[in-house]
Amino acid sequence: MTDAIQIVLAKRPEGDVTADCFREETVTLPALADGQLLVRQLFLSLDPYMRPRMTELRSYVPPFNLDQPLTGGSVGEVVESRNPKFARGDLVMGLLNWATHTVHDGKGLRKLEAGGVPLSAHLGVLGMPSFTAWYGIRHICKPKAGETVFVSAATGAVGQVAGQLARLSGARVVGCAGEEDKCAWAVREAGYDACFNHRTERDYGAVLDKLCPKGIDADFENVGGKLFHAVFERLNNFGRVAFCGAISEYQDTDPMAGPPKMFSIVQKRLTLQGFIVSDHVALMGDFVNEVGGLVRDGKLKSRETLVDGLGKAPEAFMGLLKGQNFGKLVVKVG
Amino acid sequence: MTDAIQIVLAKRPEGDVTADCFREETVTLPALADGQLLVRQLFLSLDPYMRPRMTELRSYVPPFNLDQPLTGGSVGEVVESRNPKFARGDLVMGLLNWATHTVHDGKGLRKLEAGGVPLSAHLGVLGMPSFTAWYGIRHICKPKAGETVFVSAATGAVGQVAGQLARLSGARVVGCAGEEDKCAWAVREAGYDACFNHRTERDYGAVLDKLCPKGIDADFENVGGKLFHAVFERLNNFGRVAFCGAISEYQDTDPMAGPPKMFSIVQKRLTLQGFIVSDHVALMGDFVNEVGGLVRDGKLKSRETLVDGLGKAPEAFMGLLKGQNFGKLVVKVG
Repeated sequence: MTDAIQIVLAKRPEGDVTADCFREETVTLPALADGQLLVRQLFLSLDPYMRPRMTELRSYVPPFNLDQPLTGGSVGEVVESRNPKFARGDLVMGLLNWATHTVHDGKGLRKLEAGGVPLSAHLGVLGMPSFTAWYGIRHICKPKAGETVFVSAATGAVGQVAGQLARLSGARVVGCAGEEDKCAWAVREAGYDACFNHRTERDYGAVLDKLCPKGIDADFENVGGKLFHAVFERLNNFGRVAFCGAISEYQDTDPMAGPPKMFSIVQKRLTLQGFIVSDHVALMGDFVNEVGGLVRDGKLKSRETLVDGLGKAPEAFMGLLKGQNFGKLVVKVG
Repeated sequence: MTDAIQIVLAKRPEGDVTADCFREETVTLPALADGQLLVRQLFLSLDPYMRPRMTELRSYVPPFNLDQPLTGGSVGEVVESRNPKFARGDLVMGLLNWATHTVHDGKGLRKLEAGGVPLSAHLGVLGMPSFTAWYGIRHICKPKAGETVFVSAATGAVGQVAGQLARLSGARVVGCAGEEDKCAWAVREAGYDACFNHRTERDYGAVLDKLCPKGIDADFENVGGKLFHAVFERLNNFGRVAFCGAISEYQDTDPMAGPPKMFSIVQKRLTLQGFIVSDHVALMGDFVNEVGGLVRDGKLKSRETLVDGLGKAPEAFMGLLKGQNFGKLVVKVG
């Protein structure tokens, strides 16, 4: 019998997520049934998409259940197995509970090879956020040399990869982030041509006009809201928007409407496309080939924030929704 | 020396187009220079896209010039030619002035074979509006059997073809139009599964819920505004919107914003794509093959309103913007 510490959804947030939305519990896990395995969590990924799951929005993934553990992309180690596909000591990746231990049926779990990159990289630059960036850039934004690409949340887990991939295509890449040091990192390390601080710049239109003098050909959209409106207005003919998220709207009880002058979607022949990377797992191989190679060759920088201890996950997650992390946010559980 | 009657843009409209935006003039045309030809207008097409050209919007086609004739897709007969590619008596199609006669350099004019279909069909079911419908349905909406497709302005020059093409793909097709007899025609002749009157139905959401019980998989959007918002809200996962026009917004001095909850574009993986058919002339052959065949085989119905006399063009155009035409609106000039 193993005791697990887990974090459950205590109540659904209205507006901002607050500490009382979470409750830490210690439970005694049941003995494994045939086919099950027990995984000890090493790293837990925290991502903005979890916010819509906390409410009962009709969303692309079902909402978290009240009084049940939240789940998230994780790396763990098998400590006991009654599943022939997994053995004690295997390193695995998949969706696990916000918990020290998860009983799992093995479905959707993938074994990891030890060595090479830090294990947490499988949750970031080699994982879902990076795959998301790759899909949006390669399959929707399709930047060409000389074009201008805008990336909101430029140094987030997704944005940092999106910006670098666009840059490697020869595009001018402009981003925004919420701290001066993030903007500096974006330009110095990730190769953005420019990055502005969206907390101190009040006139998004003016700063975009200055930094994107030829307009915007493609937008990798993570933020939504007013910032998206300013970008939309500056899209060039045949502009593309890869709509990945709208973090500025997740906590609004009255979310912002779409951009004014929707007719410009016709005038400028725009394409706005929403996507969720889990629809495209068939392309995982292409992603791994391209991005894995770039990581190996040192051509793709990445930045992560490690938070120590499962108990810090709720606070770190609330900070993520306010942009307080820098790069990929990962909780070191084990 | 030939005298021509022509209609010029007397002033730019603010809000609704009014009669004083137009002025009829009689001018004496200059003698032809080398390479020019004189075309006597037979039919002039009136289309909603002309409305944005009357103002100085940054649009996909340059605005009409003040005190110059408006132009439009036309069919005419060459009455004099100093261009070796055209001879007196040739029937031609292309962009001509709102006028009884146009001096032209021949660029973009296409010769027509006489016989077969009425000449005005080249401005409708075999022309630009139909090509527009075909592109939006085949390349953006891509309806599959069993899906639900919504077409606003269901019996307009574009909508009537879009709806029939979607129906021929095996989709359930629902439309709306602004008169009871248009709705009846849509169902009886054009094969729509249902068509509602958007002037008498006040609750678009309720009627869409009733007529599209499985939601909407593709939207061929001609209208914009509130109606589009109601459709957007009912799009299914992986829904497609072919954004062709937004006639409800052309005359608004304060155009409506995009739909609320833009985040659903991510949640539902929607694609919204604006298009202008003149970008796709390379596909004209495919269109003619498919749609020409359907017209010949009697599988595509079409409805047109013929207005007699160039002098009636302004009034007919103002009516078009208020939905008073039925089907393709053509002025018989000659």
